[in-house]
Amino acid sequence: MKILVWNEFAHEKTDERVRAIYPDGIHATIAAFLREEGHEVLTATLDDEGCGLSEALLDTVDVLIWWGHIRHGDVPDAVAELVQKKVLEGMGFIALHSAHHSKPFKRLMGTSCNLSWREDGDYELVWTANPSHPIAAGIDRYFKLAHEEVYGEPFDIPEADETVFLSSYEGGEVFRAGCCFYRGCGRIFYFQPGHETYPTYLQPEVQRVIKNAVLWAKPTYRAPLACPHVKKISP
Amino acid sequence: MKILVWNEFAHEKTDERVRAIYPDGIHATIAAFLREEGHEVLTATLDDEGCGLSEALLDTVDVLIWWGHIRHGDVPDAVAELVQKKVLEGMGFIALHSAHHSKPFKRLMGTSCNLSWREDGDYELVWTANPSHPIAAGIDRYFKLAHEEVYGEPFDIPEADETVFLSSYEGGEVFRAGCCFYRGCGRIFYFQPGHETYPTYLQPEVQRVIKNAVLWAKPTYRAPLACPHVKKISP
Amino acid sequence: MKILVWNEFAHEKTDERVRAIYPDGIHATIAAFLREEGHEVLTATLDDEGCGLSEALLDTVDVLIWWGHIRHGDVPDAVAELVQKKVLEGMGFIALHSAHHSKPFKRLMGTSCNLSWREDGDYELVWTANPSHPIAAGIDRYFKLAHEEVYGEPFDIPEADETVFLSSYEGGEVFRAGCCFYRGCGRIFYFQPGHETYPTYLQPEVQRVIKNAVLWAKPTYRAPLACPHVKKISP
Amino acid sequence: MKILVWNEFAHEKTDERVRAIYPDGIHATIAAFLREEGHEVLTATLDDEGCGLSEALLDTVDVLIWWGHIRHGDVPDAVAELVQKKVLEGMGFIALHSAHHSKPFKRLMGTSCNLSWREDGDYELVWTANPSHPIAAGIDRYFKLAHEEVYGEPFDIPEADETVFLSSYEGGEVFRAGCCFYRGCGRIFYFQPGHETYPTYLQPEVQRVIKNAVLWAKPTYRAPLACPHVKKISP
Repeated sequence: MKILVWNEFAHEKTDERVRAIYPDGIHATIAAFLREEGHEVLTATLDDEGCGLSEALLDTVDVLIWWGHIRHGDVPDAVAELVQKKVLEGMGFIALHSAHHSKPFKRLMGTSCNLSWREDGDYELVWTANPSHPIAAGIDRYFKLAHEEVYGEPFDIPEADETVFLSSYEGGEVFRAGCCFYRGCGRIFYFQPGHETYPTYLQPEVQRVIKNAVLWAKPTYRAPLACPHVKKISP
Repeated sequence: MKILVWNEFAHEKTDERVRAIYPDGIHATIAAFLREEGHEVLTATLDDEGCGLSEALLDTVDVLIWWGHIRHGDVPDAVAELVQKKVLEGMGFIALHSAHHSKPFKRLMGTSCNLSWREDGDYELVWTANPSHPIAAGIDRYFKLAHEEVYGEPFDIPEADETVFLSSYEGGEVFRAGCCFYRGCGRIFYFQPGHETYPTYLQPEVQRVIKNAVLWAKPTYRAPLACPHVKKISP
Repeated sequence: MKILVWNEFAHEKTDERVRAIYPDGIHATIAAFLREEGHEVLTATLDDEGCGLSEALLDTVDVLIWWGHIRHGDVPDAVAELVQKKVLEGMGFIALHSAHHSKPFKRLMGTSCNLSWREDGDYELVWTANPSHPIAAGIDRYFKLAHEEVYGEPFDIPEADETVFLSSYEGGEVFRAGCCFYRGCGRIFYFQPGHETYPTYLQPEVQRVIKNAVLWAKPTYRAPLACPHVKKISP
Repeated sequence: MKILVWNEFAHEKTDERVRAIYPDGIHATIAAFLREEGHEVLTATLDDEGCGLSEALLDTVDVLIWWGHIRHGDVPDAVAELVQKKVLEGMGFIALHSAHHSKPFKRLMGTSCNLSWREDGDYELVWTANPSHPIAAGIDRYFKLAHEEVYGEPFDIPEADETVFLSSYEGGEVFRAGCCFYRGCGRIFYFQPGHETYPTYLQPEVQRVIKNAVLWAKPTYRAPLACPHVKKISP
């Protein structure tokens, strides 16, 4: 299985707190724990040529993981359109944390993906709403993140096809933290945890969820988009 | 518009704390604030003959509201089946709090409707997940209940057609507190607040949600169940 | 209630067959039967300045109806983005026939909206899958269109929130011909009939469906898109 | 993987036409082609003791396939309740053809599962609405059944979680012929073809769909139903 971890890779270069947690970038940390599963894992970042994403490359990728935040606007529309197309053709897509506002995720949802947010160092409790879902495999009734950015409802997404996790925060907010969507031939998972200033991706439960999500999002079918002019059949 | 408020009417007869809050029963309190809206509101209870529910009566009812808890088992299967049938034929149905385990609601969901629960006097925060939904009209970003029974995920229901409210509790649990379902010709709304030992139904926001839900659940179409043997058409 | 009927208004200017059916344009025909319902109905076309669509205008429109086909590409992205934004803010949107490939509809769905198609003059049978849905009010078990363009599955849309109509054609194809979607604060209805070379919009059942859809899509709530930085509450 | 094929086994005993097609019963034919896949396949029928279904047995079964028609009423409620419970606990369930009215399927749906029907020897065209779905693997754009009983909309089911197949018939009717539902920990697939007087289950495409469905419905998680009284956590 071939996974591509994409990261805008901005905060790690400018914020000492972030670099201390993710010295080689969030993408490197995520790639490392996915490689432990025996997957082939590539990484790409915003400053790579063409954002490190080409149609030829994505045609070989099973699942694309996306992390972005302050540089969403620097992702060319053509790149966002390419990612959307490849997901609709079957490539799995996992949008992490602030990727709720990434161009590819917003294009796939068709909504603003807006939410309420604040950053006060609250703890987060991630609750399993659907323990039978493959993405929740090995996850207990809940797990705790000592500090996370708060994302609160309303979250402007289409009604999820499957709601896997719901989170609450120290301040009482709630959020649909783990949501599955089926679009075209592709499977999409959004997962809320992952603010850059906290060691979220070092936490075993978070790694487990992402490891599960990659398996869930693996394509069962890939096909080019087509709107065929068909012939009348003679039943 | 004609509304029927059904209550098992058990706790109010045996528990002084409950009687102090709902001297005439939870049904009487709910009926009273719905009458303020100009609706015709009837009430029925478990100990009425035939549970106070007949097909002739329900055929005239737009929306049935259900509250039950310790006496679910005393509701005859035939009565539960009748309610299910009338909902599928178009009657609106609102299941309150512990009615998640009522026979009619379980029959309509097809699932166990199990959840996690505890009773420690936590406060509850009810968050609006879908502010554009008619049931959320006039409800702010969230409202607080000083004390409520805690209902926690996982909540074994079919994925809701519309998720209107999500709750969190003092202890950190989360719950899909306001969920809409479309079944047959009927509309169903489940709403979590309403433990008998707290004055939940006296709170304006809770009354507003129920007033909104009744309007949302009003039938747009009613039809008897049928599985017709049809004739071949000649297009 | 204020309705805006938008039409690319291209075929009517170049194709005698189309002009014979819709001498003043498809938009004029649709506007006329909606005015019979007492609605205020405006029209706009692609060649109007700014496509006849401004944010100030759309803020006053309850429901926007869209018909386009060969000139989808001439609709500026900024106009498509504006329509998407206004729908997410609450404006109703009805996409007719070949508008399945219009920029606003595709943006709202997030999918390719591709389908299979052919044009052989087949009859179409539109079947009511959900007779209790307000959009099916007054529509019988099925109705027939003497001639329509064939649209066939697979139709690359997100799973519909509500499936109201399913169609079959003389050649045996099937299609989800009437689908409802909830996005942001807005309601979206797609309806398949309406190929320009046939008098589809003159047919009473088609007019009834569109009249019903306009009432269904009327906003219950409008709010500007926002992603607020919130303050920690003190429950 | 362990599969149990259940059949009321009535028509085959009384109708020469049916016995000619399924000399050992529909269950035997289905079991035979599933064994070709290397699965362990058991069968049970209505006249077996306890309908051939016990909790101990079902706890070892991955997927239960159900065929019934004229003897639905002879299935004890306790057996239907057991099947429902085991599905909610994770066992896969595939309801074939007239099993739309079987007690277990109706209990799981919560609706009447009524539909329109006629039997005139029409051909049926089964169209793939979702080619990316695992259950559609290896199935072309459509396949034809020379003769089938006609099932027509409206089909009174909850909106499907995934619509895989849509059928049309010689007479023009349409039907949601292949629908997936997620309930509790279980996966449910309904598939329309399979009238007893036609050799439907001998047709390769039908066998392929059922073979695919069994793999799709295989449990990923099994857990006993529970409604736990939990302790307050100390986050």
